Amino acid sequence: MTVLTDQYTAERAAIDAGLRAAASRLPAPAARIAAYHFGWTDEAGNPVEANSGKALRPLLTLLAAKTVSGQWHTAVPAAVAVEMVHNFSLIHDDIIDRDGLRRHRPTAWKVFGVNDAILVGDALHALAFEVIAEAGGDRARAGAGLLAQTVRALIEGQLADTRFEGREHVDLAECVAMSEAKTASLMGCATALGALFGGGTPEQVEALRDFGSRLGLAFQHVDDLLGIWGDPAVTGKAVYSDLRNRKKSLPVTAALGSGHADAPELAALYRAAAPLDEDGLRRAAELVESCGGRIASQRAAESLTAAAADGLADRRLHGGAVEELTSLAASTVGRVW
Amino acid sequence: MTVLTDQYTAERAAIDAGLRAAASRLPAPAARIAAYHFGWTDEAGNPVEANSGKALRPLLTLLAAKTVSGQWHTAVPAAVAVEMVHNFSLIHDDIIDRDGLRRHRPTAWKVFGVNDAILVGDALHALAFEVIAEAGGDRARAGAGLLAQTVRALIEGQLADTRFEGREHVDLAECVAMSEAKTASLMGCATALGALFGGGTPEQVEALRDFGSRLGLAFQHVDDLLGIWGDPAVTGKAVYSDLRNRKKSLPVTAALGSGHADAPELAALYRAAAPLDEDGLRRAAELVESCGGRIASQRAAESLTAAAADGLADRRLHGGAVEELTSLAASTVGRVW
Repeated sequence: MTVLTDQYTAERAAIDAGLRAAASRLPAPAARIAAYHFGWTDEAGNPVEANSGKALRPLLTLLAAKTVSGQWHTAVPAAVAVEMVHNFSLIHDDIIDRDGLRRHRPTAWKVFGVNDAILVGDALHALAFEVIAEAGGDRARAGAGLLAQTVRALIEGQLADTRFEGREHVDLAECVAMSEAKTASLMGCATALGALFGGGTPEQVEALRDFGSRLGLAFQHVDDLLGIWGDPAVTGKAVYSDLRNRKKSLPVTAALGSGHADAPELAALYRAAAPLDEDGLRRAAELVESCGGRIASQRAAESLTAAAADGLADRRLHGGAVEELTSLAASTVGRVW
Repeated sequence: MTVLTDQYTAERAAIDAGLRAAASRLPAPAARIAAYHFGWTDEAGNPVEANSGKALRPLLTLLAAKTVSGQWHTAVPAAVAVEMVHNFSLIHDDIIDRDGLRRHRPTAWKVFGVNDAILVGDALHALAFEVIAEAGGDRARAGAGLLAQTVRALIEGQLADTRFEGREHVDLAECVAMSEAKTASLMGCATALGALFGGGTPEQVEALRDFGSRLGLAFQHVDDLLGIWGDPAVTGKAVYSDLRNRKKSLPVTAALGSGHADAPELAALYRAAAPLDEDGLRRAAELVESCGGRIASQRAAESLTAAAADGLADRRLHGGAVEELTSLAASTVGRVW
């Protein structure tokens, strides 16, 4: 199943133009690094047609605005701000996680050094608030508050994630809370800001936020499935990537806590001092499946996506736009089975 | 001359309470690191009576509010936000500059690691916008915009500063522009936000911003003089600290560009591959002085401070509060001669 973001040509063009206009205000060295990170230029600064990501979050913002007002133009600043925050956190997280690849290219810190990457992340973070503030009106104030709370949640999630690595046991509930902070909060913010900038009522903003949060958690379940069974050509990561890193992802945590007879063998593989070889990786993937971790994440993704859509009923939203939003949502979590 | 911040007991207590209330919302690991950085706790998390800085910038915010409205209480959120931004940038700059000491204590990254220090800086950055947004009204929107522009300037200054290190020649004009971005912008933001949150007119906000910017540049001249001739017991840095690091500070840049017969000898000492020994450091300090760098920064600090005060005339401000603000300003730049 293909993610449906490609069809929204006008919306994607508006997002792209907004991002480029905002990034052009950065001091020259920061603008150059941001342009590389966004996939607009190569390492030397030459324009390229790179894969600059799916722009899923800002598109959710625009489609959420459309559900309340029937049109999306007023929400472009909110969409740009959400994508700025997303990318600031990617740049800093890549430093923290020592990730060398993103979207099939070397990460910003790999190319430009840790110091400049820290500063560019900071610059995009501030730029998000600048774009929101300039939009004017009370929605700017409320939007800035929502965005700031979301960054706090992102940091809480990243702090938890880094601490999980050093722990032998992580509860599924803890892992879900971490995923809610690290992934669901920003998707919820994306749709809530869209509703806010579309002029929605507080109830509509809240309903759209719930929608995005549920979708975000579903998205994380899918992402974690891809981290084990994803096609390297699509994910840009090595096969069994998350198992190689002994990552305590949602399906793995569910498997380890399943009480299944195979769980201790999986726990032993996760405890082993030496890196897992190909046989070990294949066996670990089998064990996540036999312990029910794979099906648990598939079912969670499905039920969260269904609950997200159900939550939009009876909110006096534009029906056609709700259809678009839920189809986009379904396509983003329908990547695995 | 003593900096006059100590006498503002009620204002400092309100700033401290606001900072603590805001920081208490951070996720536990971030709150602990922030409390250490602010000097509220030791490395193990035990409360201490540490030197948590002069709180100069937030105090400038409150006194600026008083010049327009006669009282400072309404500006406490703005003061807290300014101090949050200042401390976020200190934490990230300490990582970037590999500085191991701040306020006579090990820096946050030294104690808690680079990864957590990056995240805590990010958290304080977002918290500044959260506090401003919660203050409500159009001042919150305008304040968030001003704060975001200021962070952009801070980053521009830090990017320029790190690039100066790798260059043999830096113009005085470039060095002034860097200091304006890195130091003056936040002091100008501090006083502008005070005027804004005090209910000042756009003209008053602009006049207070100019006041803070001029004061900030004067402050940087003084700080750079202290970086060479400051008493280590007061500055917390080694004697001749900036000369040891071959830092292209304002007095050094002025001396190098003076055309004085001694300038080439100073340039040679700055180019030398080996670290400067005590004789070399003493000689470099003499040369900065003989080339007129010391007196140039002293005079710049004095004239900027005078111009800052002059700029507040005929703005229909509260006379007693202007007196307080200019006295505080004079005391912060009267530390050297």
